[in-house]
Amino acid sequence: MQRFMDKETSAKITGPDAAMLRAQNILRDFETVDDLQCRGYYIIQKEKGFKFGMDAVLLADFATGAPGGRVMDLCSGTGVIPLLMHGRGKGAHFTGLEIQEEIADMAQRSVVLNRLEEQVEMVCGNLCDIVKGRRSGNGDADETGEADDAEKIARTIFERESFDAVTANPPYIKGGHGLTNAASTKMISRHEVYMTLEDLVAAAAYLLKPGGTFAVVYKPFRLAELITELAKARLEPKRMCLVEPHAGEEPNMVLLEAVKYGKPYLNCEPTLVCYGSDGKYTEELLSRYGGYY
Amino acid sequence: MQRFMDKETSAKITGPDAAMLRAQNILRDFETVDDLQCRGYYIIQKEKGFKFGMDAVLLADFATGAPGGRVMDLCSGTGVIPLLMHGRGKGAHFTGLEIQEEIADMAQRSVVLNRLEEQVEMVCGNLCDIVKGRRSGNGDADETGEADDAEKIARTIFERESFDAVTANPPYIKGGHGLTNAASTKMISRHEVYMTLEDLVAAAAYLLKPGGTFAVVYKPFRLAELITELAKARLEPKRMCLVEPHAGEEPNMVLLEAVKYGKPYLNCEPTLVCYGSDGKYTEELLSRYGGYY
Repeated sequence: MQRFMDKETSAKITGPDAAMLRAQNILRDFETVDDLQCRGYYIIQKEKGFKFGMDAVLLADFATGAPGGRVMDLCSGTGVIPLLMHGRGKGAHFTGLEIQEEIADMAQRSVVLNRLEEQVEMVCGNLCDIVKGRRSGNGDADETGEADDAEKIARTIFERESFDAVTANPPYIKGGHGLTNAASTKMISRHEVYMTLEDLVAAAAYLLKPGGTFAVVYKPFRLAELITELAKARLEPKRMCLVEPHAGEEPNMVLLEAVKYGKPYLNCEPTLVCYGSDGKYTEELLSRYGGYY
Repeated sequence: MQRFMDKETSAKITGPDAAMLRAQNILRDFETVDDLQCRGYYIIQKEKGFKFGMDAVLLADFATGAPGGRVMDLCSGTGVIPLLMHGRGKGAHFTGLEIQEEIADMAQRSVVLNRLEEQVEMVCGNLCDIVKGRRSGNGDADETGEADDAEKIARTIFERESFDAVTANPPYIKGGHGLTNAASTKMISRHEVYMTLEDLVAAAAYLLKPGGTFAVVYKPFRLAELITELAKARLEPKRMCLVEPHAGEEPNMVLLEAVKYGKPYLNCEPTLVCYGSDGKYTEELLSRYGGYY
């Protein structure tokens, strides 16, 4: 993805007019606007925060979503996945749930920037609160101010089996325990500070209608845990794709889609190789970018 | 693997002397002797039965085994895996368990042919009998003569936690139920006639010492079930390798190794591609054949 605004000076703008966006209070200090290369959509990101990467783009391409239906994106961050999936017609309405209030607010401003308020809604909340009566697997969440704020927001209460599809690009590093007080935005995006894999899967299973899909991008070293948790929640893995940076290298991502109450049969897709021996993106990878890149 | 004996006439022998082997009652009618391309070992196979394939060779290469220790091969068939793994120094003693008496007998004659009676033993028995008190997940097994024969053989009773490593190239097609009466040798090798995946995993978990490895080659479409069953038995998946016929094709095999009571962390190895665009075996594949091919 190309940067359309100079990080330091905000001077080299070729996309939206940053000054106007700042005057409208859509863009704030230390934020940039980046081109999503998809239907003319833009996204607001922190200059020095966690930025969306190839994992999010590949998930938006891989996920079946629910054309005409309701889609929930858990651990939504900047809201990149709902924006890209809307751009690809993979749902009539998207909800993005993000626990960090500042990030959820920034994501909602991206929605406004793209004039998608009718189609995409960003919500601040803790996915551990979705399953009523469920507490986070990580005992620390209640001790932080951010989690308290999240609990206050009534919109985090979603109806059981009210979504046709769920997506997630969750943190994957175990051991968030004890990190919460000092946790930065980037750390929360990568470490299981506020939720565990089990919490995530429980939330997806709760929200999904029978037959609905849960698509997730994750790290291969946790694939066995992911499949085991999905099985416990009766989310049956139906599609899987490993992603290798170069041919013959260890996979560094896995894309997996499960179906609620599905019958066992995993369609294992060809391993996706990102870079060719010439150092350029492969044709297969470019096709995942949907021709927008 | 090259065929060293002509299937129809037994005339073009360049390996062992078939007439002499027949006189010694090591080779029987409708059997061939094939070169394992490994330490000069040969293997006896049915002319028209199930023959070992790339899956067995790749498993023998992939499995860690137990150098200096005891290795059990479940669903052993012709005994190809113990022979290849012995040739690669992956164990001091190998036991192959095979339910079909005729095939187990043929496999034991391959052991004799290679003069490995001290290092490799083929046993006829039902892996469902290993876990004491356990019945096969497939109710039909008891109704057949073959299963009765197997039960008579006291050698099928193995001690709990008496093996350092277990391997298996099991049948993978569900729905053996009702097939047993008409089941052919080939069918039993491919269909779950006498055992289920759950039975297999339970047997491996029972036989393995803590920290011991269970290596299996399986079909990717059943990977999620395999991982789920392993998790139930506390066999933690630690290594995985997908195998694609050609680059960019759907994987048609998965190699997986689990460790009894291991901690969760799956090392996902680079996807193995078998054939290059020139139609020849890739370097990566040839290296798995250990330079013997």
